[in-house]
Formats: sequence, structure tokens, C-alpha cells
Amino acid sequence: MATVPLLSDEEASAEALAVFDDIRATRGTDYVNNFWRALAHDPARLRATWERLKVVMGPGSLDPLVKELIYIAVSTANGCEYCVHSHTAAARAKGMTPAQHGELLAVIGMAMQTNGIVTGLQVPVDDSFRA
Amino acid sequence: MATVPLLSDEEASAEALAVFDDIRATRGTDYVNNFWRALAHDPARLRATWERLKVVMGPGSLDPLVKELIYIAVSTANGCEYCVHSHTAAARAKGMTPAQHGELLAVIGMAMQTNGIVTGLQVPVDDSFRA
Amino acid sequence: MATVPLLSDEEASAEALAVFDDIRATRGTDYVNNFWRALAHDPARLRATWERLKVVMGPGSLDPLVKELIYIAVSTANGCEYCVHSHTAAARAKGMTPAQHGELLAVIGMAMQTNGIVTGLQVPVDDSFRA
Amino acid sequence: MATVPLLSDEEASAEALAVFDDIRATRGTDYVNNFWRALAHDPARLRATWERLKVVMGPGSLDPLVKELIYIAVSTANGCEYCVHSHTAAARAKGMTPAQHGELLAVIGMAMQTNGIVTGLQVPVDDSFRA
Amino acid sequence: MATVPLLSDEEASAEALAVFDDIRATRGTDYVNNFWRALAHDPARLRATWERLKVVMGPGSLDPLVKELIYIAVSTANGCEYCVHSHTAAARAKGMTPAQHGELLAVIGMAMQTNGIVTGLQVPVDDSFRA
Amino acid sequence: MATVPLLSDEEASAEALAVFDDIRATRGTDYVNNFWRALAHDPARLRATWERLKVVMGPGSLDPLVKELIYIAVSTANGCEYCVHSHTAAARAKGMTPAQHGELLAVIGMAMQTNGIVTGLQVPVDDSFRA
Repeated sequence: MATVPLLSDEEASAEALAVFDDIRATRGTDYVNNFWRALAHDPARLRATWERLKVVMGPGSLDPLVKELIYIAVSTANGCEYCVHSHTAAARAKGMTPAQHGELLAVIGMAMQTNGIVTGLQVPVDDSFRA
Repeated sequence: MATVPLLSDEEASAEALAVFDDIRATRGTDYVNNFWRALAHDPARLRATWERLKVVMGPGSLDPLVKELIYIAVSTANGCEYCVHSHTAAARAKGMTPAQHGELLAVIGMAMQTNGIVTGLQVPVDDSFRA
Repeated sequence: MATVPLLSDEEASAEALAVFDDIRATRGTDYVNNFWRALAHDPARLRATWERLKVVMGPGSLDPLVKELIYIAVSTANGCEYCVHSHTAAARAKGMTPAQHGELLAVIGMAMQTNGIVTGLQVPVDDSFRA
Repeated sequence: MATVPLLSDEEASAEALAVFDDIRATRGTDYVNNFWRALAHDPARLRATWERLKVVMGPGSLDPLVKELIYIAVSTANGCEYCVHSHTAAARAKGMTPAQHGELLAVIGMAMQTNGIVTGLQVPVDDSFRA
Repeated sequence: MATVPLLSDEEASAEALAVFDDIRATRGTDYVNNFWRALAHDPARLRATWERLKVVMGPGSLDPLVKELIYIAVSTANGCEYCVHSHTAAARAKGMTPAQHGELLAVIGMAMQTNGIVTGLQVPVDDSFRA
Repeated sequence: MATVPLLSDEEASAEALAVFDDIRATRGTDYVNNFWRALAHDPARLRATWERLKVVMGPGSLDPLVKELIYIAVSTANGCEYCVHSHTAAARAKGMTPAQHGELLAVIGMAMQTNGIVTGLQVPVDDSFRA
């Protein structure tokens, strides 16, 4: 259970509902996931988070699917169960193949492994990296 | 300073030197960075790590540059200074533009932010994500 | 399920029960939460942890409610589900309002976001901070 | 060294300089710290981050000093050296006393300790916390 | 639920089944735990992970039980619920006593606590440690 | 630089000096490392931390060297540079060999790797582990 109630459409304020409607229109689905329903207690913060997410995760110099993979990587390193599930679903909706998912996990594992070894060894940064 | 000495070519064993040589040949540079010199105390582990890295970070269903971005994301979430520096350098060598770097950081920041909010809210995973 | 059994009052030793009783008296409730029941296998450690907690979380130069907010912040960053739930409940019992909870989460999210961006950028510490 | 150059006033764009000026005016100091100079490569992101920070860290139902303490707590759990330094300086500027700093660290330490023990024990969340 | 299906013996490829069989033979049990069934979608990665695990966790200059304790410590700090459960079970199978388990948790808690305090204080590394 | 001054023997209070003296006597060295000098601003907390450390890290059902290895593992996963250096030095002082250090790092790396893969896969805990 969440530490706050998840607000249904009926319980959400008009301001929050307007954000839900934009989420629905942007994603082309009627479904509004739990994260937004938990945020809806504070409509201003709900809107700010959603507006920022649209900008950050939208098309740019990186592909939206690549952005989802990066999101999964961060969420995995931080151990955020919800975020891993929601962004794995989002990546699949954007075309992530099983092979890509497998390679993503392999890179995450490799990075975690060397992060640990490097930190245990306290390897000093090479001058050549600083440019 | 590292918790172990970094081995120069002169100090490394023949077995470790052979890995250094493969690193040089694979990357087309004479430079062997500190991580490998710290690992060289145990040539078998040095080789296993390098061989695995070549497989994981090489071409596949994900582009090598995308893999570097994922590596940076994990290393950032884990706070590994050396890894952030070395893989940012590697990503640049593979063509990462300043705009891509900026978007990478924006996605990392967004993921970190929502990871924190989701965990603080303990949002339950939507059934629709479980498929 | 826990990695050790949770001890009921009947299963706890006399030494552990004495700590349970102090928890009850201090909090003015008959309820002893699972954390203490899991710790009760080692009554000396149970007592040391409880005695320390009373000192650290009690009144001082910081308000007990503020201390709970700090506790939630750390627990969130560390991804400790149990701790987030137990200290959110404790903060509510000490008077945390929904608005304060919302602002706590906003600060946690902001800090997580900039932690990630700063680490990805490896921003050097300003001399002016070192005083 | 940062992974990007820190932009001086001379190197920053007009758009970035406008944010620098707002930082100066808001804080009543001519000094603009390194974080903003590293972000200045992308003026839109610089502005979005600064505007959001002003809202989140400003007065509300939580005191601005309390918000700084929460920020330090998160930054400490995430191991962000820069953030610990910058927000410890900010907390002092907002009146944090040595005694408050000491208690903050004690709460952080206590939370870290029980986060570890709880996770190692996998203590199940009490039903009574879910409300 | 996992983000990928767990493969039964019937669903696994011949290559994956061969790894399952080696897991069974090595451990002297018919049971293959969920981690390997989730990895089985990519038999090459399944084999590489299992082969590496056998080498790393096998006898050497550190006792296999000590290695399990270290594994639990890392998994706890990273908040990996599955890993804490699986390696606590493995440590018990290798002879971990309740007293050893209690001391392990006490050391983890002590380390977490001082990690937090040291990071909050930004204590500089003593020259005497660098040798 | 630390976020608080490190107190010399001359600057420390009589109460803090008494703890310094016990550290010296216990370790058989005149050297008091920076962590204790940073904690010395609050003599009560200094004493509580030192007394607890002596109990937790002293002989018991786990060997003091094994406890240092566990401490390094946690500190590495948490990215605490100071703690990695100080406890690596402590482990060496208690007899850690280069081969043991290498195996410790290999186990840390393996655990980090599988922590990441397991979290990315969200592998459900096997019923057989819950006992």
C-alpha cells in the first residue's frame, strides 16, 4: 500500500483531472497509472512533474526508447521496484525487443560489477579522462 | 591513491601484459587506463573482466554508444567517480555530442527524482505493468 | 517474510520482554512493531539499538518531527520500504500534515535529481563552501 | 575536474546570464557556484532547474532550514560530495547551529544503521503502518 | 512478478537446460531457483554468469561461508530483497549460525551508520591509510 | 576538507581526549585517525560510537578480520571513500593477504552484478528461501 491514498478520477480535483486528461491524450490510452494518482494530492506538483517528464523523455538528440533504457538503468541501480516495472513496460511499448532487454541487463550488471571493483580499489581518475 | 599499487608495464606479469596488449589493439591506442593497471595483480581476473567487457559492450542489438550511456547512468546512480569519468570519455570517443550528454543528464536527473518520490510514496505496481 | 522469525511476547526472553515493555511505556501503546520482534533474538543488541534510538530521536536542538522527516529522507534514498512506512507513520503520529509530507517528498525528489546531475557532471566543490 | 567546462560570465549565453543574475538577486550575493556554471551549457535546463529549486526550497509548510537538512540527508545517503558541501554551507547560512548539525548527523547515522539491519532482516511491514 | 517469464525445464532451451543440470549437480539438489530461470532466456549469458559464480564463490583464500556473508553485506547495502533472501539461505546451508547471522547484521549496521556520518562530515582520508 | 574542523589533542575537550586515549590504548598506536577527530565536537557521541564499535568489531562468533571484510563490502556498495581506505588499512593490519583482498573484490563485484540483474528482472523470492 502507498503511504498516501491513490486518488480515483472521482476523488481528484479538477486541476488534477486536467493533468490526467493530458496523460491520457498524450499516451493514447485511458489508463492513468498509480504514480500519477498518488501525486494527485498536490495538483501543482503533479502538473510540474508531468510537464517536465514530457519534455525530458520526449524526442530530442536521444531516441525516446534510449531514454527509457537509461531510466531503467538508473531505477535499477536505485532499487526502485515500481520504476523498473513501469519503465520496462514503457520501453516495451516503444519497441524494446527481448534481445535489447537482455543486453540492457548485461550492461547494467557489468557497470554495477566494475563500479564495485573500482570503488573497492579506489582507482584514481586518469588525467587523460579530464578534457 | 588506490588501495593497491597500479602496475606499470614493467611491473606487470607476462599474462597481464598480454591483456594490456589486447586492450591496446582493440582500442587502437597505446594508453592503458588505471583500472586495468589496478586489476593486473590478479591476471586471471584481469583477463576475465576484460573479455566479458568486450562481449557486453560490443555491438549487438544495442548500439555501443547507447551502451556507454547506460553505463554512465548506472555509474552516476552508484556515485562512482572514476566510472563516470572513464565512460563519459568513452562515450565521447564513440560520438556522444554535447546535446546528447545534456539529455542523458536530464534523464538521469528525472529518473533519480521520480525514484525518490515513488519510494517515499511506496506506490504499488500497477497490474497492467505485469505482463 | 523476514530472514528470522519475529518473536511474540511468549517467545521472547525476559531480557527482550523488558525492552518491549519500555517501548510500550515510552510510546504509550501496547503495540510493539515487527522490527523489535525481529531484533529480539539478541536481547543485548535489541536493548542497545532501542536505547540509542531514544537518545538520537528524542528532543534536542532539532524537533522530534524534523528528525522523523530526516529519517524518512535517508530511508527513501536507501530504498528501505519498511523504514519508509514505519517512519511515515511515526511522523504522522508526531503531527506531520499532508502539506508537510508533500513538501518533504518534493525536497527528496529535488535532492535526488540534483545529486544525479552533479555526479554526472562531477562538479568540483567550490572553495567558498570549505569553511 | 567536471565532465564539462564551467562557464564564466563571459562564456555564458545571455539566457544563462539572466539566470545567474536571478541567482545573485535571490541570494543577495555576487557569487554563482559551480553547479550553475556547469549547467549553463543548456540555458533552458538551467532555468528550469533553478526555477524549480526556488519553489521547492522556498518557504512553505516546512521551514527553509528544515528543507536544507532534508537535502543534506538525501545527499549523504547518495554519497554526493558536492551536494553535502553546498547544502551544509546553505544550512549554515540559514542558521544551522553546530548542535543541530551534530544531531542531523546522528539521525542520518541511526537511519542508515537501521536501514541496513531492516533490509538484512527483511522485516515485513506492520499492518498498522498501512493507513 | 518478474519483468520476464521464469522458464520451466520444459520451456528452457537445451543449452539452458545443460546449465540447469550443472547447477543441480554442483549443489546436490534438484531445485533450480528463480534467478536462473529468469536468466535462461539468454543461454549464453546464463552460462557465463553461472560459470563465473562458481569460480568467484568457490574455495580460495577466503572460506565459501565468508564469501556468502560478504555477498549478503553488499546485497543489503544495495537493497536487493531477492539477493538477501537467496544468500541468507545459502549462508545457512554452508553453516552460518544464528549468532554469526546476528553479528553480520551488527557489522552491516555499524558500517552503514559510520558510512553516513563520514559522508556527512566529508572526513578527509588520512595519509597513513594510503600505503 | 571536512564540513567541520578536525580537532587536535590540544583543541579536544578532556572528555574527548579520554576517548582518544582509549583508542590509542586499544590499538597500541599513538595515531588517532581523522574520523574520531571530526566526531570530537560532540564528546558524548564520540564515546557512544567508539564504545559500540569496540563491541561490534571485536571477537565473537565471527573473526575480526572477517568483520573488516564485511565492513569494506558495505562501504564499497555505499561508495564511502574514507571508509574503504580506513577499513582496507584495518584489514591489512589484521592480516588480510593480497589474495584475500583480490577475492573480496571479486565477491563484491559479483554481488553488485547480480544485484543489478536481479533488480532489473524483479525476480520473485523463491518460497524455498523463506524458512
